[in-house]
Amino acid sequence: MKFYDGIKLDDYSNEPKYVQLYEKLKNLIEDGAIKPNEKLPTIRELSKKLGVNASTVVNAYRLLEQKGYIYTKVGSGTYVLKKSEEKIEFFSENITVLHKKDEFSINEGINFSTLTPHSNLFPVDEFKLVINKVLDRDGAHAFTYADPQGYYFLRESITDYLKECGIETQIENVSIISGAQQGIDLVAKALINFNDTIVVESPTYTGAVAVFKNRGANIIEVPILEDGIDIDELEEVLKRHRVKLIYVMPNFQNPTSITYSFEKKLALLNLAQKYNVFILEDDFLTEVNFGNKDAQPLKSLDFCDRVIFIKSFSKIFMPGLRIAVLVSPLNMSKNLIFLKQNSDISTSSLIQRAFDLYIREGFWTSHLKKLKDIYFERYMIMKENLSKLYFVDFKEPYGGIHFWIKTDIDSSILAYFAKKNGVILAPGNVFYLDSRSSNNIRLSFAQTKIDEIKEGIRILKECYEKNKLPG
Amino acid sequence: MKFYDGIKLDDYSNEPKYVQLYEKLKNLIEDGAIKPNEKLPTIRELSKKLGVNASTVVNAYRLLEQKGYIYTKVGSGTYVLKKSEEKIEFFSENITVLHKKDEFSINEGINFSTLTPHSNLFPVDEFKLVINKVLDRDGAHAFTYADPQGYYFLRESITDYLKECGIETQIENVSIISGAQQGIDLVAKALINFNDTIVVESPTYTGAVAVFKNRGANIIEVPILEDGIDIDELEEVLKRHRVKLIYVMPNFQNPTSITYSFEKKLALLNLAQKYNVFILEDDFLTEVNFGNKDAQPLKSLDFCDRVIFIKSFSKIFMPGLRIAVLVSPLNMSKNLIFLKQNSDISTSSLIQRAFDLYIREGFWTSHLKKLKDIYFERYMIMKENLSKLYFVDFKEPYGGIHFWIKTDIDSSILAYFAKKNGVILAPGNVFYLDSRSSNNIRLSFAQTKIDEIKEGIRILKECYEKNKLPG
Repeated sequence: MKFYDGIKLDDYSNEPKYVQLYEKLKNLIEDGAIKPNEKLPTIRELSKKLGVNASTVVNAYRLLEQKGYIYTKVGSGTYVLKKSEEKIEFFSENITVLHKKDEFSINEGINFSTLTPHSNLFPVDEFKLVINKVLDRDGAHAFTYADPQGYYFLRESITDYLKECGIETQIENVSIISGAQQGIDLVAKALINFNDTIVVESPTYTGAVAVFKNRGANIIEVPILEDGIDIDELEEVLKRHRVKLIYVMPNFQNPTSITYSFEKKLALLNLAQKYNVFILEDDFLTEVNFGNKDAQPLKSLDFCDRVIFIKSFSKIFMPGLRIAVLVSPLNMSKNLIFLKQNSDISTSSLIQRAFDLYIREGFWTSHLKKLKDIYFERYMIMKENLSKLYFVDFKEPYGGIHFWIKTDIDSSILAYFAKKNGVILAPGNVFYLDSRSSNNIRLSFAQTKIDEIKEGIRILKECYEKNKLPG
Repeated sequence: MKFYDGIKLDDYSNEPKYVQLYEKLKNLIEDGAIKPNEKLPTIRELSKKLGVNASTVVNAYRLLEQKGYIYTKVGSGTYVLKKSEEKIEFFSENITVLHKKDEFSINEGINFSTLTPHSNLFPVDEFKLVINKVLDRDGAHAFTYADPQGYYFLRESITDYLKECGIETQIENVSIISGAQQGIDLVAKALINFNDTIVVESPTYTGAVAVFKNRGANIIEVPILEDGIDIDELEEVLKRHRVKLIYVMPNFQNPTSITYSFEKKLALLNLAQKYNVFILEDDFLTEVNFGNKDAQPLKSLDFCDRVIFIKSFSKIFMPGLRIAVLVSPLNMSKNLIFLKQNSDISTSSLIQRAFDLYIREGFWTSHLKKLKDIYFERYMIMKENLSKLYFVDFKEPYGGIHFWIKTDIDSSILAYFAKKNGVILAPGNVFYLDSRSSNNIRLSFAQTKIDEIKEGIRILKECYEKNKLPG
């Protein structure tokens, strides 16, 4: 308690006492007087020590937590946050509007960090039209519970659409879920129990890893090579461990933008059959293909019915809809629907009906075409500008909305300085389980117009040249 | 394989072979030749045996599964379903429209079994109005990811509304979730690990139990008495076990309609503090109060900040919206928001904005008033008609939308015969973990008009008199 001895609160100040206390504690933390992971005194201890009300301490702690200085372990106490967790401040995968009241006035600079399309790409007028048509057509039915497996007619129109993507399946195996993240959660609930082992690609989407961890899984990373996951290492893992699930993004992988070769896809399916393990395919960008012949869904090749297929619409349509599709192997549907019902009963009936009508009226096809045209232009500009950078190395993905580039300095350093200059990057380290140092950066053009791509890459070059090691 | 020897499929029949096979297997199961939990042959074995394509067997099995005759264990095989699981057929808590293509032509008879309001009580026109206002006002912002904690302004308007309900809290502790079921799931993820012990009321809402089981929890039932949970037995349990969570519905409990007395609420909070355990309060009907003085939220009395409060709007508004509110103890918010983000990123932005505007424009208050008036009339009629039944015993709840009545015969028998006569009941056994025999029935008037209540109770009487034991 020695550091707390020196704290004096002013009875006559204009500042409320809890704000004064917050300021004092904040300074102690920033100065390093109270160390990362050090436990703070309990509310009772500190209020007694300082002779203030418990509520003063409660409010000061609350403010410290909001500002990211401390965190709470349930049933244990309050601790100082580690400095390394600062990375959260300048990188967030899915959320561009976070804890901000006035969302309309945000100016984040040039944002290469997110895969989420900019809202100026959303077909708002068409969607408003179908919502109103649905409300006129279905009335109150649009607000009842939907079937937990999903609105029948949407499942029908999606089953037809999947056929266009090469996936032949029956409507019984198709479920509508509240976004791909929920699909990952449902599959984890269905297949992963405490202490089970699962395999993920390395690097990978850490939002999935968080779900697997919460189920108590042991997670093994297998590296991604230029043509997909390292099959030899994967087989070694499958030999040594009873693996329950392999989580992969075979097309335009996040973050590497790598697409598995046809041969590798078959090899993966063969291993799944040989070792009796399920594969979770997370598909979010297959449609955005600019000539990559390998980018068919793994599910379309699934001769052994071992692939659970999730298609997200958040990167190719509107993320706020919270709609995705899950295609399950035969006989797994029933259990997944039961788990879906236990997770949130069902997905919004109105939104499902509106999306169904959107597809049936042909809006979906034309939206996709328009979006691909816009993305193709951005893709070419980004490729061209990155190619000019002497310090950058990358493999062309021939599709998708992001590049995975490599430099010779630590990406978190580059991201830090880029942010100071108004450019937001996704540094490679955030895609590894151990946040290891990485020289890779994921650059996405989902939010950036042509001019911003050029300007952003120019600034990136400046930041590199200021920060590269001498020699 | 002996039973399968006699199966002959007709090459020249008009019926597809898989339908023929389905019929034969169905008959064998119904006749008891293939027993509950018996394993069916693999697809390969049976197709070889019968000399048919594998797809014939696959489709026959699929049909059997759809019709509820068999089930599949992942990685193990296909099994005959137990007869006792038939109860699913005539009772489903939340879902009135299930696997039906033509939802507009359903005539289920008189439905006393669900707490979900009938769709003719939904304020569709007003909600359409606010949706369109939101789309005009916010445009594409209505389709971006929402803040995982919920749309700020909705959290603000709900915080104000909670104050009216007696709950004084700060906006920081209030989260918007995709329905109360998701709230239960999030709390389970936050607090329950494999092998942890939790307490539920007996009888209880089994949709919550399913979530706790999926987390690997040990579940202890503590009986509900006339004034709430049995506090003495609860304390015995708390002494003997390290309990992590107590799941309760203190007002108009589901299914018993019992409201905890004020004293019992305080006693429960005292135990929570004494044994350092959290309480999950599931509140879905507190607003529908017809003079019950005890029916204030437990959270409004929560002096020790041990109550996680979930408010559902599915029973008092429109279930298809998939919106509920979670108020967390201080310092637990951050973890719950993290878990929410891992579960489905965020709740539909459009629906949150529309609901916010609905509240701010005063529609919510007037809807609630109108709904209460309708429910009050039904409540009085149901009470009056039940009171006339010589074989029925019940305690008046003074609020809520259901009665918990007791007869002297097994409720599943009564429910079975009532269904044959067009009246759907929720038999007591479905609210117990072991589906034990129960003489209680939950009767809800959420879906029934005045005439239907009278007619339904008349039929109930008939069914009772036909099926009661002689003597």
